[in-house]
Amino acid sequence: MVERAPIALCDCGMAQALDILGDRWSLLILREALYGVTRFDDIQADITIPKSVLSQRLARLVAHGILAKRAYQKPGVRKRYEYVPTKAGRAFALPLLAILQWGDEFVRGQPGKLGLRDRTTGNTVTVGLTDLHGHAVAQDNLVLDFPGYGEDTDPG
Amino acid sequence: MVERAPIALCDCGMAQALDILGDRWSLLILREALYGVTRFDDIQADITIPKSVLSQRLARLVAHGILAKRAYQKPGVRKRYEYVPTKAGRAFALPLLAILQWGDEFVRGQPGKLGLRDRTTGNTVTVGLTDLHGHAVAQDNLVLDFPGYGEDTDPG
Repeated sequence: MVERAPIALCDCGMAQALDILGDRWSLLILREALYGVTRFDDIQADITIPKSVLSQRLARLVAHGILAKRAYQKPGVRKRYEYVPTKAGRAFALPLLAILQWGDEFVRGQPGKLGLRDRTTGNTVTVGLTDLHGHAVAQDNLVLDFPGYGEDTDPG
Repeated sequence: MVERAPIALCDCGMAQALDILGDRWSLLILREALYGVTRFDDIQADITIPKSVLSQRLARLVAHGILAKRAYQKPGVRKRYEYVPTKAGRAFALPLLAILQWGDEFVRGQPGKLGLRDRTTGNTVTVGLTDLHGHAVAQDNLVLDFPGYGEDTDPG
């Protein structure tokens, strides 16, 4: 086992992030918002989430500054609300893209389906590790607090 | 709103990945395993998860090929089990690191605390977007199905 502080003492952003976003519904709601689906009824219809759960999750995401609640009104209809990603919400696209990329490779068995491109060059883009000079770093060459990461200990 | 297939029809690895790993406990368990904390009692003590929940989550992670169950035995004690990340499990370090990086910046307000380094160069490493030539791609320059991503629509 690795010497390190237990999680309760771990000054680590992961547990705190997961306290906010560590459930399937919150992650799917944020994905919707990043797709541009920001209105309560549209989100509800897309991911078929119970309305009470959607209300609760939206309130949490707003309280944590990940979505911003905005009123909108169509003529002759009462005021309604939409939920727009903040800077923090938009930045969570990177973890979501990393999850999507992983799911494509390891759940669906179709790596490289992510379909991200560089607007200027048209090159395919993936989520990965880069150094401060902007160069990609191989996962095997990484030093971090996940000692199993990059080592070939695959028992399968 | 963006024209796209609803999620139920979306041939997308994200929802499938979240079906497996879209809960806080599963993500924390996998993090433990990637740290090298692979034994039931050690995981349970670290993240103070109820034993019944831990058993259930470990069984799911094994069933989905993310952890592999291995027997081990200390002298004079009955056989016990540990749960070692497979190739798929190790690859999920990238999404977890992306979550950690996001949490450091947007929850803790301390960006750059991730502490990843390139083993060879010693350079700091971050999770980001790279093209096929290994060059970093700015998020603003990304074309993808998250139209809100990289646009400055922050209402805050």
